[in-house]
Amino acid sequence: MVMSPTDLKIDITRLSTDASDFDSRLNDLLAWEGVSSAEVAARVEEIIGAVRLDGDAALLDYTRRFDRLDAQDMTELTLGAGRLEAAYRGLPPAQRDALSVAAERVRNYHQRQKPESWHYTDELGNLLGQQVTPLDRVGIYVPGGKAAYPSSVLMNAIPARVAGVKEIIMVVPTPDGVVNELVLAAAHLAQVDRVFTLGGAQAVAALAYGTETVPRVDKIVGPGNIYVATAKRAVFGQVGIDMIAGPSEILVVSDGTTDPDWLAMDLFSQAEHDEDAQAILVGWDSEHLNAVAASIERLLPSMERAEIIGASLERRGALIECRGRHEAITLINRIAPEHLELSVIDAQSWLAEVRHAGAIFLGRYTSEALGDYCAGPNHVLPTSGTARFSSPLGVYDFQKRSSIIQCTAQGAAQLGETASRLARGESLTAHARSAELRIKGQGDRA
Amino acid sequence: MVMSPTDLKIDITRLSTDASDFDSRLNDLLAWEGVSSAEVAARVEEIIGAVRLDGDAALLDYTRRFDRLDAQDMTELTLGAGRLEAAYRGLPPAQRDALSVAAERVRNYHQRQKPESWHYTDELGNLLGQQVTPLDRVGIYVPGGKAAYPSSVLMNAIPARVAGVKEIIMVVPTPDGVVNELVLAAAHLAQVDRVFTLGGAQAVAALAYGTETVPRVDKIVGPGNIYVATAKRAVFGQVGIDMIAGPSEILVVSDGTTDPDWLAMDLFSQAEHDEDAQAILVGWDSEHLNAVAASIERLLPSMERAEIIGASLERRGALIECRGRHEAITLINRIAPEHLELSVIDAQSWLAEVRHAGAIFLGRYTSEALGDYCAGPNHVLPTSGTARFSSPLGVYDFQKRSSIIQCTAQGAAQLGETASRLARGESLTAHARSAELRIKGQGDRA
Repeated sequence: MVMSPTDLKIDITRLSTDASDFDSRLNDLLAWEGVSSAEVAARVEEIIGAVRLDGDAALLDYTRRFDRLDAQDMTELTLGAGRLEAAYRGLPPAQRDALSVAAERVRNYHQRQKPESWHYTDELGNLLGQQVTPLDRVGIYVPGGKAAYPSSVLMNAIPARVAGVKEIIMVVPTPDGVVNELVLAAAHLAQVDRVFTLGGAQAVAALAYGTETVPRVDKIVGPGNIYVATAKRAVFGQVGIDMIAGPSEILVVSDGTTDPDWLAMDLFSQAEHDEDAQAILVGWDSEHLNAVAASIERLLPSMERAEIIGASLERRGALIECRGRHEAITLINRIAPEHLELSVIDAQSWLAEVRHAGAIFLGRYTSEALGDYCAGPNHVLPTSGTARFSSPLGVYDFQKRSSIIQCTAQGAAQLGETASRLARGESLTAHARSAELRIKGQGDRA
Repeated sequence: MVMSPTDLKIDITRLSTDASDFDSRLNDLLAWEGVSSAEVAARVEEIIGAVRLDGDAALLDYTRRFDRLDAQDMTELTLGAGRLEAAYRGLPPAQRDALSVAAERVRNYHQRQKPESWHYTDELGNLLGQQVTPLDRVGIYVPGGKAAYPSSVLMNAIPARVAGVKEIIMVVPTPDGVVNELVLAAAHLAQVDRVFTLGGAQAVAALAYGTETVPRVDKIVGPGNIYVATAKRAVFGQVGIDMIAGPSEILVVSDGTTDPDWLAMDLFSQAEHDEDAQAILVGWDSEHLNAVAASIERLLPSMERAEIIGASLERRGALIECRGRHEAITLINRIAPEHLELSVIDAQSWLAEVRHAGAIFLGRYTSEALGDYCAGPNHVLPTSGTARFSSPLGVYDFQKRSSIIQCTAQGAAQLGETASRLARGESLTAHARSAELRIKGQGDRA
């Protein structure tokens, strides 16, 4: 789409850390509250209840109403390995190769991420450690329609497979029967076992509780609309879930020597996701920031998704001028961005000071787009400042640990003294007596 | 408390895997739905809203109403390092030593659990990896009253400290001003920085959003009542949270040669927590199960918490007879217990087949009580079957990872081809063009 000249002016926010109202303006810019509502929550509870009660019948009913698919039977909403492989074989070779290269690189990276079981023997001869095991079965939610990204299928399924998950179930809504062949091809490459063409809260409920046809899974991952996010929050505890994602964001830091067109395009690549996406550039060279602003104005009309990009940059984008490297790092850690591009010289020297970021792209050549598709690391990343406490999706999300404790008779006797004393301090005397029974000499039947 | 003879008969459920209705009876036994309600959720939303709006004033108000503490100022609800140390110094030496031994063993164990940053260089010269960093600030919720356990303070705070968390904030309600000195002493040992005598949803809200006095934290851990659990679920996303815990449970597997009194006491030690706690014994020797039932009857009247134990065992306990080791392992993996005691010969040989359990206690000498206090592993464990997908609380819960990507010019050019093709397949052309700008020869200003 080419915009008309009157649309070309874009009013992107300019902030300066010098300004007295900088803090409050930055807070306003970053503010994001998940847009849930009591109404959505009640609707979702109703759908979950119906799926728990009526199983497949409820799924068929909701799919008829919401996706306009008149299936008589769950087999009509099931795609097996053969169908996925056919989608893969049917791709143009160049696309098939690109997908395969990406899958291979993502697999290689994640294989290095596998936690291992460990144990040791303490000075009393007790064995202590942790046993790491994969989840049995995982469900991947893939949105339908325009946000159906084959790359997301790879990023969600491959870590699960590397973790050793035995069965991977995918759900993807196909409103009016429209199927995305690239998504199915990606599912084949990522070794997804079965696909159900289901979506919304009903798909989440089916994965969480199981129906006659859809098996109950142990964890549900993948992005979705407000109904999907609300349903995931509601079933959390019954199954594991990944983070509830907000809009995607990037923080680019430029030292003033990166080509302004490159930076403009990097901001566009974030902004084109949707109008709530957030793209922020930080620098300390005001001439350079002006040059990037000019690149944005010049390049925007040539972009296919110019309207979305323009809306996103006007609503949530910003060019921030700060005093230098030190302030830039303070901003990074305050914003805790999903994506951080360090478009600076000697980017590695910044690493030790970056405390919060989902993914860090170092140097001018490392555009976020490379990481989104094929560099290897996962593109499912913590948004809205949650990088303060969460991590990229990884193999560790598809494994869990069991503590291992084996006491020797001597070890049990010695630990028993301590445990008994502490248990009695908490008035838990059965705990105390259970420990005392193992204390040497008291172990015989009284 | 000694029960009267008429109370002595305890009617503990006996199940056999042979019975045709075994599956449904087991399902009924295990069923546990978190007891939330729309009413509680609405009340909690109101409290969170008030704390976000009015900060300290709301905290003082709720503390006055719920805990009957008429504080004029937050300083009256704040305990600093000096007060914690005084509590520690004031303990009887034997108790102080026991607490110190436990803290030291827990610290040693968790130090082995620390994930490390890693990176590698791929064949194109690109640097790929993950940087592991601690959370900045963590909040620990400690329940007041009878369930105030100093051991829980150690188990929640020590992994955070080992992870490198800079500041640990603890909240603990002190209704009517009753302070638990052991809890404060444990906070001193675990190097908690500050304690606020706050509880309920208002404490969770303060930690999640911050007030004038209570600093916003990055993650909230620790158990609490239904208001606390509901509040944690509500603020999830704004901050990280640990699992929402259900009642505690144990599954003991006996091969028939462990002293029945030991087993009875192990079941009691779980059942004494509260009437919803669950203690199950599995074995294949029916004479032995009878002997354990007899031990339960004989020992119960001598227990201080006999009423709670009796109620718990009658409501949620069971002795299950199965056909042998193979069926026992199937039961373990189906139940996915929080605590698993393998009171069997050669317990280690079972490990490879145990897929789901929070903590595994191997051999007759390893009573759960040792793990609850001082063996080293964490006693905060996944309940209600959530061991299918979650892990003991650990150092990893107080750290997060950032993906690291640094492409060389050659690497960016080669990856750019793949990224561009995939981005165009997803109609994300700004992504494609951002990658293409880095392809060698196209990198110069057009």
